[in-house]
Amino acid sequence: MATITGPLSGDAKNTVAEALQGALVDLIDLSLVAKQAHWNLVGSHFRALHLQLDEVTQLARTHMDTIAERAVALGISPDGRSATVSRSTKLPQPESGWIEDGKVAATMTDILDGISKRMYERIQATEEADPVSQDLLIAVTQELDKQHWMFQAQR
Amino acid sequence: MATITGPLSGDAKNTVAEALQGALVDLIDLSLVAKQAHWNLVGSHFRALHLQLDEVTQLARTHMDTIAERAVALGISPDGRSATVSRSTKLPQPESGWIEDGKVAATMTDILDGISKRMYERIQATEEADPVSQDLLIAVTQELDKQHWMFQAQR
Amino acid sequence: MATITGPLSGDAKNTVAEALQGALVDLIDLSLVAKQAHWNLVGSHFRALHLQLDEVTQLARTHMDTIAERAVALGISPDGRSATVSRSTKLPQPESGWIEDGKVAATMTDILDGISKRMYERIQATEEADPVSQDLLIAVTQELDKQHWMFQAQR
Amino acid sequence: MATITGPLSGDAKNTVAEALQGALVDLIDLSLVAKQAHWNLVGSHFRALHLQLDEVTQLARTHMDTIAERAVALGISPDGRSATVSRSTKLPQPESGWIEDGKVAATMTDILDGISKRMYERIQATEEADPVSQDLLIAVTQELDKQHWMFQAQR
Amino acid sequence: MATITGPLSGDAKNTVAEALQGALVDLIDLSLVAKQAHWNLVGSHFRALHLQLDEVTQLARTHMDTIAERAVALGISPDGRSATVSRSTKLPQPESGWIEDGKVAATMTDILDGISKRMYERIQATEEADPVSQDLLIAVTQELDKQHWMFQAQR
Amino acid sequence: MATITGPLSGDAKNTVAEALQGALVDLIDLSLVAKQAHWNLVGSHFRALHLQLDEVTQLARTHMDTIAERAVALGISPDGRSATVSRSTKLPQPESGWIEDGKVAATMTDILDGISKRMYERIQATEEADPVSQDLLIAVTQELDKQHWMFQAQR
Amino acid sequence: MATITGPLSGDAKNTVAEALQGALVDLIDLSLVAKQAHWNLVGSHFRALHLQLDEVTQLARTHMDTIAERAVALGISPDGRSATVSRSTKLPQPESGWIEDGKVAATMTDILDGISKRMYERIQATEEADPVSQDLLIAVTQELDKQHWMFQAQR
Amino acid sequence: MATITGPLSGDAKNTVAEALQGALVDLIDLSLVAKQAHWNLVGSHFRALHLQLDEVTQLARTHMDTIAERAVALGISPDGRSATVSRSTKLPQPESGWIEDGKVAATMTDILDGISKRMYERIQATEEADPVSQDLLIAVTQELDKQHWMFQAQR
Amino acid sequence: MATITGPLSGDAKNTVAEALQGALVDLIDLSLVAKQAHWNLVGSHFRALHLQLDEVTQLARTHMDTIAERAVALGISPDGRSATVSRSTKLPQPESGWIEDGKVAATMTDILDGISKRMYERIQATEEADPVSQDLLIAVTQELDKQHWMFQAQR
Amino acid sequence: MATITGPLSGDAKNTVAEALQGALVDLIDLSLVAKQAHWNLVGSHFRALHLQLDEVTQLARTHMDTIAERAVALGISPDGRSATVSRSTKLPQPESGWIEDGKVAATMTDILDGISKRMYERIQATEEADPVSQDLLIAVTQELDKQHWMFQAQR
Amino acid sequence: MATITGPLSGDAKNTVAEALQGALVDLIDLSLVAKQAHWNLVGSHFRALHLQLDEVTQLARTHMDTIAERAVALGISPDGRSATVSRSTKLPQPESGWIEDGKVAATMTDILDGISKRMYERIQATEEADPVSQDLLIAVTQELDKQHWMFQAQR
Amino acid sequence: MATITGPLSGDAKNTVAEALQGALVDLIDLSLVAKQAHWNLVGSHFRALHLQLDEVTQLARTHMDTIAERAVALGISPDGRSATVSRSTKLPQPESGWIEDGKVAATMTDILDGISKRMYERIQATEEADPVSQDLLIAVTQELDKQHWMFQAQR
Repeated sequence: MATITGPLSGDAKNTVAEALQGALVDLIDLSLVAKQAHWNLVGSHFRALHLQLDEVTQLARTHMDTIAERAVALGISPDGRSATVSRSTKLPQPESGWIEDGKVAATMTDILDGISKRMYERIQATEEADPVSQDLLIAVTQELDKQHWMFQAQR
Repeated sequence: MATITGPLSGDAKNTVAEALQGALVDLIDLSLVAKQAHWNLVGSHFRALHLQLDEVTQLARTHMDTIAERAVALGISPDGRSATVSRSTKLPQPESGWIEDGKVAATMTDILDGISKRMYERIQATEEADPVSQDLLIAVTQELDKQHWMFQAQR
Repeated sequence: MATITGPLSGDAKNTVAEALQGALVDLIDLSLVAKQAHWNLVGSHFRALHLQLDEVTQLARTHMDTIAERAVALGISPDGRSATVSRSTKLPQPESGWIEDGKVAATMTDILDGISKRMYERIQATEEADPVSQDLLIAVTQELDKQHWMFQAQR
Repeated sequence: MATITGPLSGDAKNTVAEALQGALVDLIDLSLVAKQAHWNLVGSHFRALHLQLDEVTQLARTHMDTIAERAVALGISPDGRSATVSRSTKLPQPESGWIEDGKVAATMTDILDGISKRMYERIQATEEADPVSQDLLIAVTQELDKQHWMFQAQR
Repeated sequence: MATITGPLSGDAKNTVAEALQGALVDLIDLSLVAKQAHWNLVGSHFRALHLQLDEVTQLARTHMDTIAERAVALGISPDGRSATVSRSTKLPQPESGWIEDGKVAATMTDILDGISKRMYERIQATEEADPVSQDLLIAVTQELDKQHWMFQAQR
Repeated sequence: MATITGPLSGDAKNTVAEALQGALVDLIDLSLVAKQAHWNLVGSHFRALHLQLDEVTQLARTHMDTIAERAVALGISPDGRSATVSRSTKLPQPESGWIEDGKVAATMTDILDGISKRMYERIQATEEADPVSQDLLIAVTQELDKQHWMFQAQR
Repeated sequence: MATITGPLSGDAKNTVAEALQGALVDLIDLSLVAKQAHWNLVGSHFRALHLQLDEVTQLARTHMDTIAERAVALGISPDGRSATVSRSTKLPQPESGWIEDGKVAATMTDILDGISKRMYERIQATEEADPVSQDLLIAVTQELDKQHWMFQAQR
Repeated sequence: MATITGPLSGDAKNTVAEALQGALVDLIDLSLVAKQAHWNLVGSHFRALHLQLDEVTQLARTHMDTIAERAVALGISPDGRSATVSRSTKLPQPESGWIEDGKVAATMTDILDGISKRMYERIQATEEADPVSQDLLIAVTQELDKQHWMFQAQR
Repeated sequence: MATITGPLSGDAKNTVAEALQGALVDLIDLSLVAKQAHWNLVGSHFRALHLQLDEVTQLARTHMDTIAERAVALGISPDGRSATVSRSTKLPQPESGWIEDGKVAATMTDILDGISKRMYERIQATEEADPVSQDLLIAVTQELDKQHWMFQAQR
Repeated sequence: MATITGPLSGDAKNTVAEALQGALVDLIDLSLVAKQAHWNLVGSHFRALHLQLDEVTQLARTHMDTIAERAVALGISPDGRSATVSRSTKLPQPESGWIEDGKVAATMTDILDGISKRMYERIQATEEADPVSQDLLIAVTQELDKQHWMFQAQR
Repeated sequence: MATITGPLSGDAKNTVAEALQGALVDLIDLSLVAKQAHWNLVGSHFRALHLQLDEVTQLARTHMDTIAERAVALGISPDGRSATVSRSTKLPQPESGWIEDGKVAATMTDILDGISKRMYERIQATEEADPVSQDLLIAVTQELDKQHWMFQAQR
Repeated sequence: MATITGPLSGDAKNTVAEALQGALVDLIDLSLVAKQAHWNLVGSHFRALHLQLDEVTQLARTHMDTIAERAVALGISPDGRSATVSRSTKLPQPESGWIEDGKVAATMTDILDGISKRMYERIQATEEADPVSQDLLIAVTQELDKQHWMFQAQR
C-alpha cells in the first residue's frame, strides 16, 4: 500500500495532527448540529435563523474538507466517522425535538464560542510546527467568529 | 411554542416517520463514510474513486435535506445528531487509517447495496401511507442504485 | 380547427380533467393571494415574509403551467381566466388593505393546509386514471407542504 | 399596525392611486389572458404565438410588481385579488376552450390596444401628480406597444 | 469480469428488462427520426418545426441515457446498437428525401402517439416490479405527451 | 488641460449642477450611514436589516456613479470628497456605537424620507433645465422610495 | 398586407416619425463611423480608443433597434438602408485610410456633440407628441453624452 | 504616423485587399438589409423571420469585424463608411416601407445567393495569396450558405 | 414543395454528397457505439472510459449536425435513419452484453482509426469540389484523431 | 441591548481595535478619493486611469467590509461615518475640480504609499494580539501594494 | 509501453513533426517573453500594454496545447521542456530588468513578425503533408498577425 | 524611466527577492514539466494523470503571476525568461519522449517534494522580512502539498 508522507515529521507532525483532527471533529459536528437546528427550528424568527444555519453548515462542510485534506497532505490519516465524531465531540448537544428560535441563537452562540476558543489554541499550537496548516485554521476561525457575532447580535 | 402539523396522522404518520428517520440516518452516515474514504484512499485508481466519493457525499447531503424537511412538513421532528447517527446507523463502518482503492470499491458496493435494500422497504411501506414521501424515497433510491452500479463495475 | 387528443378517454379523462382544473384554480389564486400579501404586508417580520411570499408565487406560477399543459396534452382545455378563478376558487380571501405579519403567517398556513388537502384527494383520484398526471400533483404537493410548514413555524 | 406613508398626499395621491390600481388590474388580467391563450391555442402558427404569449405573461408579471410596489411606496394599498381583477377588468375576455391562432393574434391586438390607450391616459394623469410613477407607466407602455405591433404584424 | 447485480431478480427483473429495452429503442430511434426531419424539412413553417424537432432529439437523448443507466443499475445490459435499433424499432420510418412541414407535424404526432401508448403499457408493467424504474418511465412519458400535443396543435 | 463641456450652459447648467451635487452628497452619505448601521446593528431582527442595509449601500453606490458622471458629462466637476460630504450632508447622523434594530428601522425611514423630499425638489428643478438629468433623478427616487416603504413597514 | 397602427395619429405621429427617423440615421451612421475608426486607428493611445470605439458601436446598435422598433410600434416604417443613411446622415465623415489617435478623439467629440444637440431637439419635439418615445430618446442621449465626455477628456 | 505592415506584399496583398474589401461591403450591407427587413416585416410568419433576420445581422456583424481586422493585420486599410457601402454594394436593395413575409424569404434567398457566389470567388482568389485570409472567408461562407438554405426552405 | 439549391452542381456536388453522407453515417454510428460502451463497460478503469466515451458521443453529435446541415445547404438530402445507418455503417460492431475496459480501449482505437482514414479520403476528395465542406471535415478529423490518441494511450 | 463579545479582551483587544479602526478610515477614504479622481480626471491617459481607479474603489469597498466586520466579531464597534472619516483620515486630499492624469498617477502613488506604511505597522501590531485580524490586514496590504506599483509604473 | 500511431508516416510525418515542434517552441517562449514584459513594464502606457501582453500569453498557452496535442495524435512526441525551449528558441530575448513601454511595443512587433514568418513557412510545408495540422497553424497565425498589428499600431 | 519602489529595502528586500525569484523559477518550470508529462503520457491510468497534470500547470501559472507581481510591487524585477528558467531550475528534468503513467506519478511526487521543501525554507526566510510575501508563499505551498499527496497516493 502506498504510504503518504509530507513535509513534517516528529513532534511537529504530532502537534499538527492533533490540531487538525480536533478541528475536523469540531467542524463535522458543527455541520450536523446546524442542520439539526435548521430542521427543528420554530418561532417567529424562523426564516432568518433557518437560512443562517445553512450558511453555518456550508462553511463547516467547506472547511472540514480543507482541514482533512491538509492532514492527508502531511501523511496524517483523518478520522471523520460518525462514531469518532460522536465520541470525541466537544460541542454541547441540542435536545431532540423542536427548538425555539431564541434558544437556537443562544445555543449557536455558545457552540461557536467554544469552537473559536479551541481554534485559537490550535492557531497558537501550529505557529511553529506548520505555518501552512496554521493559515487554514486562521481562515476558518475568521468565518466562525463572524457567525458567532451574528448569532449573538440577534439573541 | 408553535406546533407543526401536516397532512398525516395516526398510523400513516408513524409509518412515514420511521421510514424517513431511517433514511435520514442512512444518508447522513453515507455522507460521512464517503468523505472518510475520499480522504483516506490510496492506490493507483485514486483519482477516479476520490472524485466519485465526493459525488456520493454530494447526493447524500442533497437528499438528507429533502428527506428531513419532508419529515418536518409532516410534523415529525427529524434527528440527525452525531450520537443518533452513530448509535442507529446500519452502515458497516470502515476501519481507521488509509484504505486501498480496491477495498473502497468493494466496501462502497456493500454499503450502497444495504441502503438500497432498506430504501426499497421504505418505498413499499410508504406507498399507502404517503405517496408524496414515497416519491422522494424513489428519487434517492434511483441515484443510490446508480452509484452502486458504478462502484461494482470497477471492483 | 385542430383537435387535441391524448392517451386518456372516458371516465379516466373526466376524473383527471376535474383534478387538474381544480389544481389549476388553486395555484392561480395562490399566486394572486401571495402577491397580495407580499405587497400589503406590514410588521416587524416584514422582510422574511415578503421574500417567502414571492417564493410561493413563484412555485404557484411554475406548477400552474405544468398542470395546465398536462391537461392540454390530455386533450382537456384548461380554464385560467380571472372570472373562472374568482368564481371557483376555494381559497379564503384576504381582506383589502394592509395586513399584519402575524395574520399573514396564520392565513397562509390555513390556505396552504386547504390546498394540500385537496391535492391529496386529487393524488388519490388520479392514481388509477393517470399515473403521469398523479406524479405532477405529487410534485406540487411536496412543495406546498414545505411552504405550509415554514409559515406554521413562524406563526 | 405600521402606517405606510410616502411623498404624496391629497389629490395627487388620489390621482396616482387610481392610475396605478387601474394599471395593476390591466396587467394581472393580461397575464391570465395570455396564459389562457398560451394553453388553449391551436393552429399552424402554434409555436410562434405560444412563445410570444409567454413573453406577454412575463412582462405583465414583471410590471405588475413594479406598479404595485410603487403604490405601496406611496402609501396606497394595491388590490390584486382575483375577485377584484375579475370584477374591474376592462379586458375583453376570451371564450372558454380551444382558440385558433388567427383569432388569438386578433384578440391580443385588441386587448393590447385597449391597455395602451388606458396607459396613455394614466401617463397624462400622473405627469403633474408624480413624475416617478409616470416614468414606470411609460416604461410598461413601451413594452406593451411593442407586443401590440408584433401581434398586429402576424394577423 | 465484474458482474453487475441490482435490487431485482427473477420475473420482476425480466419484466423491467423488457420495458427498459423497449423504451431505449423507442428513444434512440426517436432521436434519429427527429434529426432526419430536422434536416430534411421544407415549407413555410420550417423554423418552428426545425427548432421543435431539436427539442425532441434533446429530450430523447437525455432520457435514453437515464433509461439505459437504470437498466445497468439493475444488472441488465442495454442494447442500443444501430442494428438492434433498426431491427426492433416500432416507429414508422420517414421516406428518404425532403419532407414538407405539414407532413412532418402529422408524422411526428403519429410517432409520439405510438411511443406514448407503449410507455403507458410499460408504466403499468413495472408498477409492481420496480417503482423506481416506473418513475423514470412516467417522467419521460410526460415530456413525450407534451411534444405530442404541440405537434398536434399545429397540424 | 482639457476642458469638459456639455449640452448645457448658463442658468440651466447652474441649476442642474446644484441638483446633481446635492444628490451626490445625499447618496455618498447614505452609503456610509447604511454601512455604519449594517455593522453596528443588534437586535432580534438583525439579519433582515443587516441584509437590507447592504441593498441600500449598493443602490447608493450605483446611483452616485450615475449622478456624478452625468455632472461630468455636462462639464460640471462633482465633489465627493469626505470633507465635502461631512460638511454639506443633510442626513441626520447616527450616534457612535451599537444600534438597536428598532432604532435602525426608524432612523433609516427618516433619512430616506428626507432624501426623497430633496430628490422631488431636484426633479422639479431640472424638468426644464435638463430632462436627461431629471430622468436619472427619477430613477434613483423610485428606488429610494421603495426602501423607505420597506423600512417603514417593519418599524 | 397587414397594416400597423399605434397609439398616435396626425401631427403627433408626424413629429415623432421625423424625430425617430433622424435618430435612427444618426445611430446607424455612428455605428459605422465608430467601426471605421476602430479599424483604422493608429497611435500610442491605440488600445484605449480601439476599445472605447467598440463601446460606441455597441450602444449605437442597441439603441438603433429600440428606436426603430418604437417607430414600427407607432405604425411608422423606419428606413435604415445604406443609401438612406449615406444620403441623409449629418455626421461629418472621416477620410479614408489610417487615422491618428488624437484626431479620432477630436473627431468623435465633434460627432457626438452634433448628435447630442439633435437629440435634445428631438426630446423637446416629442415631449407633447409622445412621452414614451421621448423617454427612449432621453435614454440614448444620456449614454451619448457620457461617451462625448470621455472622448473630450482624452483629447 | 505608425505604418502597419503585415506578411503580404505585392500582387498577393492586392488580391487579398480586393477580396476582403469586397467581403466587408457585402457583410455591412447585409447587416443593414437584414435589420431593415427585421423592422418592416409583416405577415403571418412574422415571428420566425423576425428572429432569423436578427441572426443574419448578428453573423454579419461578427464576421465584418473579423474580415476588416484581417485586412488591417495585412496593412490594408478597410473602408466601411456608409457612403462607400452605399456606392459599392452589390446587394439588391429592398423597397422602402412594409415588406411581406413571403417577399422577405425570397429576397433574402437571392441576396445570400449572390453573396455566396462572390465569397466562393474570393475563396478561390485568396487560396494562393493568403491561406489565412482564405480560412476566414471559408468560415463566413459556411454560415451564409446555412442561412441561404433556411430562407429557401420556408419560401 | 420548395427545392433547396446551393453553390455546387454536377460532379462537384456528387463528390461532396458522397463524402458528407459517408461522414454522417460514421458519426451517427460512432455516437451509438460509444453510448453502447458507455453503458456496458466494466473493469477497474470504468470511470475514466465511461466519461471519455461520453465525450466521443458528444463530439459525434455536434459534428453530425454540422455535416448534415452542410449537405442540406448544398441541396443534398442527408439520410440518418436507423436502417440506413445500420445497413451502410463501416464501424466494426461491439458484441452485445458487458464489455471489459481493456477491450473498450482497443475497440475504440480501431473504430476511430477507421473513421480517420475515411475522413482523410473525404478531405482529399472535397479539396477541389468544395473547400467549405472540406474545412468542416478537417475540423471533425482533428477531434477524432485526438480521441484516437487518448484511447491508444491507455490501452 | 445585546452585547457583542469576541475572543479578545484587554490590551490585545485595544491594540486590534486601533489597528482595525485605522484601516477602516484609510479604506473608506481611499474609496472616496479614488472615485473623486475617477470622475474629475482629464488627460490623454484618461481611460487607463479611469478604469484603474474603479478597481481601487472596488478593492477598498470589499476590504472595508471585511475589516469592519472583523472588528464587530471582536466586540469592537467600528466607526465609518463621514464626519469620522473626514476628521481622522490621513490621506492627502485632492483639490476640487478637474485633475490631470499625470497628477492623478502621482497622487495615487503617494496615497497608497502612505496607507501601505500604516498597514505594515498594523500587521506588526496585531501579530501577537490577533493573528486572525493580522491575516486580513496582510490580504488588503498585498492588493494595495499591487495598485501602488501600477500607478508608479505609469507616472 | 503503449505506442502512439496516427494517420501519417514517412516523409509526411517528418515534415509535420518539424513544423509542429517549431511552432511549439515559438509559442512556449512567446508565453514566457510576454509574461516577462507584462511584469517588468514601465511607462505611461503601462496599463494598455500590461493587459495586451496577458492576451498574448493567453493565446500562446491555448495554441501550444492544441499544437502539442496534434503532434501526439500523429504519434510525434512533442518537447516543451525549458532546456529545449531555451536552446532552440528563435525569439530575440529581452534584457533583464525593467522595460519601457515604447521598447515593449517595438520588441513585441519584431517577435511576432518573426513568428508569423515561420508560421507561414509551416503552413506551406504542411499543406500536402497534413491539411489537418495546417488548419491549426492557420488558426494560430491569424491571431498572431492580429496581435502584431496592434503592437505596431501603438509604437 | 519610472523607478518602482515598495515597502521594503536593504536586507529584507534582498531576502525576499531571493525567495520570490526562486519560487518563480520553480513555478514556471513546474508548469512546463507538467505540460510535458500531460502530452507525453502513456499507460492505462492515462486519463486520471492527464487531467491532474493540467491542474498542476494551472496552479503553477496562477501562482507564478502572483509571486512575480509581488516582486514587482516590492521594486524587484522578476526574471522568468526561458534561459533563466532553464539555467537555474532545480527540478529534475524528464527524459524526452513518451513517459509511462507509473513513472509520471513517481516523478511528479519527487518534483513536488523538492519544491515544497524549498517553499518551506522561503516561508521561514520571509517571516521577518515580509509577512505579506510570506502569506503568498504559504498559499502556494498548501496547493503544492495537496498535489504532492495525490500523486503519491496513486503511485
